[in-house]
Amino acid sequence: MWLFLNNSYVEKEQASISPFDRGFLFSDGVYDVVRYYPQSGYFQTQAHLNRLSYGLDQLQIRGIETERIGDIINELLQRNGQTKAQAIAYIQVTRGAPYPRQHFFPPASTPPTLLITTTPFKPHTEEIEKGVRVLVEDDIRWLRCDIKTIALLPNILSRQHAVEQEACETIWTRNGVITEGTHTNFCAVKDGILLTHPRSNLILSGITRQVVLDMCVRLNIPCQEVPIRFSDIGDLDECLIIGTTTEITPVVKVAETTISDGKPGSITKKLQKEFYSIIL
Amino acid sequence: MWLFLNNSYVEKEQASISPFDRGFLFSDGVYDVVRYYPQSGYFQTQAHLNRLSYGLDQLQIRGIETERIGDIINELLQRNGQTKAQAIAYIQVTRGAPYPRQHFFPPASTPPTLLITTTPFKPHTEEIEKGVRVLVEDDIRWLRCDIKTIALLPNILSRQHAVEQEACETIWTRNGVITEGTHTNFCAVKDGILLTHPRSNLILSGITRQVVLDMCVRLNIPCQEVPIRFSDIGDLDECLIIGTTTEITPVVKVAETTISDGKPGSITKKLQKEFYSIIL
Repeated sequence: MWLFLNNSYVEKEQASISPFDRGFLFSDGVYDVVRYYPQSGYFQTQAHLNRLSYGLDQLQIRGIETERIGDIINELLQRNGQTKAQAIAYIQVTRGAPYPRQHFFPPASTPPTLLITTTPFKPHTEEIEKGVRVLVEDDIRWLRCDIKTIALLPNILSRQHAVEQEACETIWTRNGVITEGTHTNFCAVKDGILLTHPRSNLILSGITRQVVLDMCVRLNIPCQEVPIRFSDIGDLDECLIIGTTTEITPVVKVAETTISDGKPGSITKKLQKEFYSIIL
Repeated sequence: MWLFLNNSYVEKEQASISPFDRGFLFSDGVYDVVRYYPQSGYFQTQAHLNRLSYGLDQLQIRGIETERIGDIINELLQRNGQTKAQAIAYIQVTRGAPYPRQHFFPPASTPPTLLITTTPFKPHTEEIEKGVRVLVEDDIRWLRCDIKTIALLPNILSRQHAVEQEACETIWTRNGVITEGTHTNFCAVKDGILLTHPRSNLILSGITRQVVLDMCVRLNIPCQEVPIRFSDIGDLDECLIIGTTTEITPVVKVAETTISDGKPGSITKKLQKEFYSIIL
């Protein structure tokens, strides 16, 4: 399998980075994931690259031409023979590999590290059709969740807890409010209105989240970006988690609470129908 | 320069890790730093290794024999000809490099990655003698600061701000209370009593912090592990930052507030004298 590392296409087995890379030592970097559908191509590439640029800008990592990334993903997909089925492209940028290890930023001349991979992706068909259960944990993350950094330790720990308890995802609450999941945004439906956490430093501004909000407008589904209190979970009509790999997945059980009748709700299904009419 | 990577001693230039290492992708690992003094040898190695073990345990990273690490550091110091001057040993463990990238833990058979380096260290003599200025920022980190993880992005950002403003360190406040610095613990003296933040999930339990608390007992300096409110900063008699590389460094200015007469205080100097009588 080919991947792209700094300025070269290399075979996976030959790919290596320095142990002094600031991604490895400090989680000093950002990433993004773009989905590829054979029927419709790359989904929302520009939005993903804009978010990557935002993160690079927030961390003041310079020297990446994000406009080249689309072509590189394309080339990898071709080289890897991955154009005929669904795939994901993973893009990571770190602040390079200066020596010796120092907390503060290296000289501006230090080249950043750019890693791009493509991987076949099997859609989560059954979860998307039948709905899933999610766990609930305290959101103990830092307060810049709007940056898609590689400092994912809290995410992987909470995701691991979900796997151990045969749940699909863990959603987090901060001060009683549901923020988001470890790799998804969270939405709910109450009285016909789609609800989701406002954009802020407490959540990642999901690309699929924006796609869903835009679809709501087209489908005349009222939506509100408002805090959803976890204590109201039993009163919600529908819950869903959304994201690049999760797409639009109904949540039929939150911890031990069954949502409505435990089946995917009508607004969720309406959104799914519209979503798959775009991508498939 | 030699370093130790997994089970081999390798030259720095030959050392490489996989881009699929979970340290690089997820900040899924812990680290520690041990100081070497030619006069007295390694300082508090066992305490550092105990803390490393605690972190590994908290993250459920298995398969590292921490009791071997002392010998490896020793061998590196010899190979690198670093026994005659001060040096630091850096130890990092991550949850290995499984493929493909998945948030949840890899199979238990996945070997962890172990990196150990030794580097010459020039003591910060002038800062320790004259005292330093520190910045103050909001503590926006996650709520498991008791684990010494490589998810150091907030630390490097706040440290960078200090460098840009010609300060030595940035100390953080959470809910009005001074927690610690980006790579130091914070102490203050008021009415002859040494104060420092209680051990909790909000600070790293510093090895030098414990050494200082132990010295206070020997020197009959009363000490209290209590919250220090930032609003009281102007009333403090002495401030100091302490840590493995910082040792015991007086803080003579916090942001724009000069502490007492702007000179290192008497209790700070008493602690320094005792500290250097141990290590030099």
